[in-house]
Amino acid sequence: MGWGDLGVYGEPSRETPNLDRVAAEGMLFPSFYSANPLCSPSRAALLTGRLPIRNGFYTTNAHAKNAYTPQEIVGGIPDSEHLLPELLREAGYASKIVGKWHLGHRPQFHPLRHGFDEWFGSPNCHFGPYDNKARPNIPVYRDWEMVGRYYEEFPINRETGEANLTQIYLQEALDFIKKQQAKARPFFLYWAIDATHAPVYASKPFLGTSQRGQYGDAMREIDDSVGRLLGLLRGLGIAERTFVFFTSDNGAALVSAPQHAGSNGPFLCGKQTTFEGGVREPALAWWPGHIPAGQVSHQLGSLMDLFTTSLALAGLKPPSNWTIDGLDLLPALLQGKLMDRPVFYYRGDTLMAVTLGQHKAHFWTWTNSWEEFRKGVDFCPGQNVSGVTTHTLEEHTKLPLIFHLGRDPGERFPLNFASTEYQEALGRIGPAVQQHQETLVPGEPQLNVCDPAVMNWAPPGCEKLGKCLKPALSAPEKCSWPH
Amino acid sequence: MGWGDLGVYGEPSRETPNLDRVAAEGMLFPSFYSANPLCSPSRAALLTGRLPIRNGFYTTNAHAKNAYTPQEIVGGIPDSEHLLPELLREAGYASKIVGKWHLGHRPQFHPLRHGFDEWFGSPNCHFGPYDNKARPNIPVYRDWEMVGRYYEEFPINRETGEANLTQIYLQEALDFIKKQQAKARPFFLYWAIDATHAPVYASKPFLGTSQRGQYGDAMREIDDSVGRLLGLLRGLGIAERTFVFFTSDNGAALVSAPQHAGSNGPFLCGKQTTFEGGVREPALAWWPGHIPAGQVSHQLGSLMDLFTTSLALAGLKPPSNWTIDGLDLLPALLQGKLMDRPVFYYRGDTLMAVTLGQHKAHFWTWTNSWEEFRKGVDFCPGQNVSGVTTHTLEEHTKLPLIFHLGRDPGERFPLNFASTEYQEALGRIGPAVQQHQETLVPGEPQLNVCDPAVMNWAPPGCEKLGKCLKPALSAPEKCSWPH
Repeated sequence: MGWGDLGVYGEPSRETPNLDRVAAEGMLFPSFYSANPLCSPSRAALLTGRLPIRNGFYTTNAHAKNAYTPQEIVGGIPDSEHLLPELLREAGYASKIVGKWHLGHRPQFHPLRHGFDEWFGSPNCHFGPYDNKARPNIPVYRDWEMVGRYYEEFPINRETGEANLTQIYLQEALDFIKKQQAKARPFFLYWAIDATHAPVYASKPFLGTSQRGQYGDAMREIDDSVGRLLGLLRGLGIAERTFVFFTSDNGAALVSAPQHAGSNGPFLCGKQTTFEGGVREPALAWWPGHIPAGQVSHQLGSLMDLFTTSLALAGLKPPSNWTIDGLDLLPALLQGKLMDRPVFYYRGDTLMAVTLGQHKAHFWTWTNSWEEFRKGVDFCPGQNVSGVTTHTLEEHTKLPLIFHLGRDPGERFPLNFASTEYQEALGRIGPAVQQHQETLVPGEPQLNVCDPAVMNWAPPGCEKLGKCLKPALSAPEKCSWPH
Repeated sequence: MGWGDLGVYGEPSRETPNLDRVAAEGMLFPSFYSANPLCSPSRAALLTGRLPIRNGFYTTNAHAKNAYTPQEIVGGIPDSEHLLPELLREAGYASKIVGKWHLGHRPQFHPLRHGFDEWFGSPNCHFGPYDNKARPNIPVYRDWEMVGRYYEEFPINRETGEANLTQIYLQEALDFIKKQQAKARPFFLYWAIDATHAPVYASKPFLGTSQRGQYGDAMREIDDSVGRLLGLLRGLGIAERTFVFFTSDNGAALVSAPQHAGSNGPFLCGKQTTFEGGVREPALAWWPGHIPAGQVSHQLGSLMDLFTTSLALAGLKPPSNWTIDGLDLLPALLQGKLMDRPVFYYRGDTLMAVTLGQHKAHFWTWTNSWEEFRKGVDFCPGQNVSGVTTHTLEEHTKLPLIFHLGRDPGERFPLNFASTEYQEALGRIGPAVQQHQETLVPGEPQLNVCDPAVMNWAPPGCEKLGKCLKPALSAPEKCSWPH
């Protein structure tokens, strides 16, 4: 989902009355960032509070390449990482993930081995359909075992876009909340829906109801579901004891536009890039009685802040001697404070850009290769900023391109290198980057090796369903990441 | 001002709490259009309810050229046009224009000759400063006579952006409302502020207070002023008897970006073009107790609709046997109805495009000439859609480019000519255009002739102020419109 996909962020079709009401009753962050322009690294960062370069969700096969967790990936979330649900358990929280996990699908990476008590969803993206010969269809799990596969027990109609998955995910979430409330147990629900990820889908009652086709239908169903979830919290009388945050893991994938991609509003490019369109996200916080209604916070926020903020809410602290990139947002949420902090934008192993205050400095620029671009793979359709949306990896480490994101949120007008504003901005950004890089200890890269043998041939539980497939022979090799 | 400049339309800096509240208390139109991508023609259309091609605010010096009313223009609003304040007078309304008139500055075009009872403001744009030799500074009028000139009695500091004009315009508006209320007289206030027109300006208390420089400061001052105006209506107890509409005359002038231009949100290009960025406008309707709060209307709206809607509110009808392009929006405003209607986009004498339902067809595409573009005049900075943002005037009258504005508000992905959707859309659009063109009677073009003798050398009242300048010799010639 992109920054511009919510009505309250300006989407002309206005499909999100419930989310817009969340903003009206809570706090809107216009400058909130994912931890990465791609799904798996961003989600790993959300749950660890740490940049992908630390938690291992990156590749060193080549520089500045985006990598994720397709089903041939060998790596996943390292045991050494402390995940949010693991830590919340210390405060008595029950934790459930509904939807896409994406932190590795081999047994050692299973979410129930990393702090979650329950899971309903899938380890990988709902790409497909596959032939179950070269590639198996992606399994859907309930807790430890698979209960079916996408395009089989969990159909997604590629023609019509019809799928009931959001409804299933909604019901799972509602049930979990009710169950915890009945037990008076505090809970952490990670509702990781994926209806706006290509191939986008919606259930029959929502199909054809929006002004912008299947993507808008998916938005409407997500919005309706959010309304039901918050309605349940209200109905159970626990709204004032439940902190809700809505955001996304990366910008809209404009490469799938217009049928299967949303909007990044006024921002440059989309998913896969470290321009604003790839990393700036819708972000709404809701906590009636605590967060004042209808507020806007210009705090620079990050997906990783949800880790630290959640711990603070539970009265916990991150493990000592452990580097956390997330910030505790409670001073911003409850007292309207603004905290100075840099936001780092990585692509794989490479620090591409950083924002500090209103200035963003690009040390490297790249969209994708000329070769891919000429084949029609375009991360910035209709957009072209000379010297910025480059198709070769361009180095600017000595003299970064600097934009003022207030006057120029679309990253179209780099500051003049000779200007006082440029010099002052660089004078503040330089030391922040130096400190970050000098103290950085990169994690063991998890996204380097791929092997057809590790694909979802025979997930736990397949025997009971008669759905085990014969694994491919092991042939580990360096994963090939095109961009 | 552009579509994307209000918080409620997604501007990240969120400078407009008062206007956002207008939306929350009233109705927001995401698909509302100016009558032209340029100021004078759009304003003439607002006050006449008629397209510029009918009311004469266009040029035939060349095809598809934007024209307006600089101070050397000989033409202006024809006496044959029926202006909104002229008609409202029949229902007892007092009318005042505060700010920029722009419908001609020669005596016969004076707003008090065309229905207004009062005027405070200027006939032309606040460009300058001029030397009063080759060009006089633009006068500021109170009613029939000038009371000073921009950059003289009404300073605008080009360095700092400081000017008190919005505060003066606000006070004029407040005083007018109070005066009419005291007399229990119905009123029409046309509050035509121009702080977001380059050179943008704000008064001292607002300078430096926004996140996006002088443009944002100007936005904040306009927003604050709207809050005060609505506060007065509430304070006087006439909010429920006063219809308020907020909109703009064209999209943000991206050619002045980033210092002196705002945001067109996710739309293509800006002022001067018939792409969405040039013509789609923020539009908010407010009428407590009548318009339900917090509504969004997907009605296709036009600036010209304010003419017809205002007459309807006053219990009047447009003159019979007179072609009006505006629609009465009351069914949309009061009953949430959607009315099918085409929106025509002209550039000068040329019908460039039309929207019907969700489909927009371009019969001609043009931004500006290669010659201008190579000099750095760019109406679409950072944007480039191949075959769409053309620098030669490209004809598509036989096979228009058609976009679906729901799925593709940014006009980046023309429909495939062979698709069923294209054929169906063309099947609906074709007859609507044919009907429009067959019945069209163009007005006498007013924007063809320029003459240095008609500039604001010696406006009425200059004698009292000792500010008369010696007129230039008459040298009428065809005005030169570069784009």
